[in-house]
Amino acid sequence: MRRFILLACLVALAGCATKPRERETLAQVSTIDSLMAGNYDGTVRLSRLYNYGDFGLGTLDRLDGELIVLDGQAWQVPVSGEARRVAPAERTPFAALTHFDPETILVIDNTSGISPEQQVLNHLDPDRFAAIRVHGRFSSLRTRSVPRQETNRPLPAVIADGQKTFDFTDVEGTMVGLYCPAYVKGLNVPGFHFHFITADRTAGGHVLSWTPSSVVVAIDDASTFTMLIPDGFAPGAGDDKALEAVEKGK
Amino acid sequence: MRRFILLACLVALAGCATKPRERETLAQVSTIDSLMAGNYDGTVRLSRLYNYGDFGLGTLDRLDGELIVLDGQAWQVPVSGEARRVAPAERTPFAALTHFDPETILVIDNTSGISPEQQVLNHLDPDRFAAIRVHGRFSSLRTRSVPRQETNRPLPAVIADGQKTFDFTDVEGTMVGLYCPAYVKGLNVPGFHFHFITADRTAGGHVLSWTPSSVVVAIDDASTFTMLIPDGFAPGAGDDKALEAVEKGK
Repeated sequence: MRRFILLACLVALAGCATKPRERETLAQVSTIDSLMAGNYDGTVRLSRLYNYGDFGLGTLDRLDGELIVLDGQAWQVPVSGEARRVAPAERTPFAALTHFDPETILVIDNTSGISPEQQVLNHLDPDRFAAIRVHGRFSSLRTRSVPRQETNRPLPAVIADGQKTFDFTDVEGTMVGLYCPAYVKGLNVPGFHFHFITADRTAGGHVLSWTPSSVVVAIDDASTFTMLIPDGFAPGAGDDKALEAVEKGK
Repeated sequence: MRRFILLACLVALAGCATKPRERETLAQVSTIDSLMAGNYDGTVRLSRLYNYGDFGLGTLDRLDGELIVLDGQAWQVPVSGEARRVAPAERTPFAALTHFDPETILVIDNTSGISPEQQVLNHLDPDRFAAIRVHGRFSSLRTRSVPRQETNRPLPAVIADGQKTFDFTDVEGTMVGLYCPAYVKGLNVPGFHFHFITADRTAGGHVLSWTPSSVVVAIDDASTFTMLIPDGFAPGAGDDKALEAVEKGK
């Protein structure tokens, strides 16, 4: 515990009670089970989602790579691994955004015996939602992306034969992340879910593993969770083990 | 099918695309699993919930009876069965509200071979959310209410030894209802959930069964689902069979 430095915790002016409540909302399009089932048509434009936030992650129309939204700007990391900017008019089948107003700031490294994710978890309420920004230098980081799909084959099949992984060493950049409580299983991913973009905004992806060299973690608790359920929504069927494998790139 | 009269369906000006999106949100406090586990402290004032809607249902602080919100006014049916008005400053541990802007109006009776709930279901997208108002004369209707709880014993135990049921025959009044899709199990009640208030606003409760004589059904689809997760939220553990028994008063 003493190996991380708690820089500022619960900054008074950033407390929930004093922030406009709509900024405390984590808003998502569709559900993870629907995406898992192969519903890849983009239904909601990023421009509409920006009403709900400036920070988050997801994918793009037809599962075309990994989406990172940071400071109100969006990047796609397609299966080529070469990041590109995403226009506000593009649509997503699944994404989650919030207005990022962190209350808690930590510096973590890899010298304590406590895993980086556990160090973050120690500063969260595990039964509520949070957005997490991890910025700095990573000694190693592995990401993946997925190829655009023309058909609706389920996500586990896409991961099994289509994902590409990318290994970064001694890299500077930012992870955008969400923490979701276990009770939203089927709707979003329980636990942590991180996407990464390099400091030069050229590469990144869905994070499979990460080891910090020296990073600053900013945590924004969210007291409200919102789902946009598009016309023609197909819920899919839950499979928690398949989801866990997909998230870990297996 | 021909036995019900479809009065008006998809009134053009009430279509989703032309309504402010925030009116298309079903917003709730806490989750049904948390309530089931005995978390009865009121956390959110009705006055705050009225930002999210003028129509809905729930319970009050310490599980003190059944809450009905209709046309922006709230009633409680306590275990005495005698309805009373609820002040905006009162708090709820679990309630769900929406701005009621119905798109679909039906008249149903009990002369077709199709159950009233199935007649309503035929006009819903089962994978999305809806609010349902059923107004008119009921040949019979059974409700229940529950006593205020000083301790946090789980809801199934309260129902088993504390609920009071009320039988109405040839009664005029309004049911306020919600329809939730199966994938929000644990968060809200899948399927239909109705509360009732008599036309003279003296009685009502959580509906256990209903037989329409002649009623008008108004349906308001909701494209967005929002959960307010209060500070200190305790999620409880899911038990679908226990929930079904509670909803049916068993």
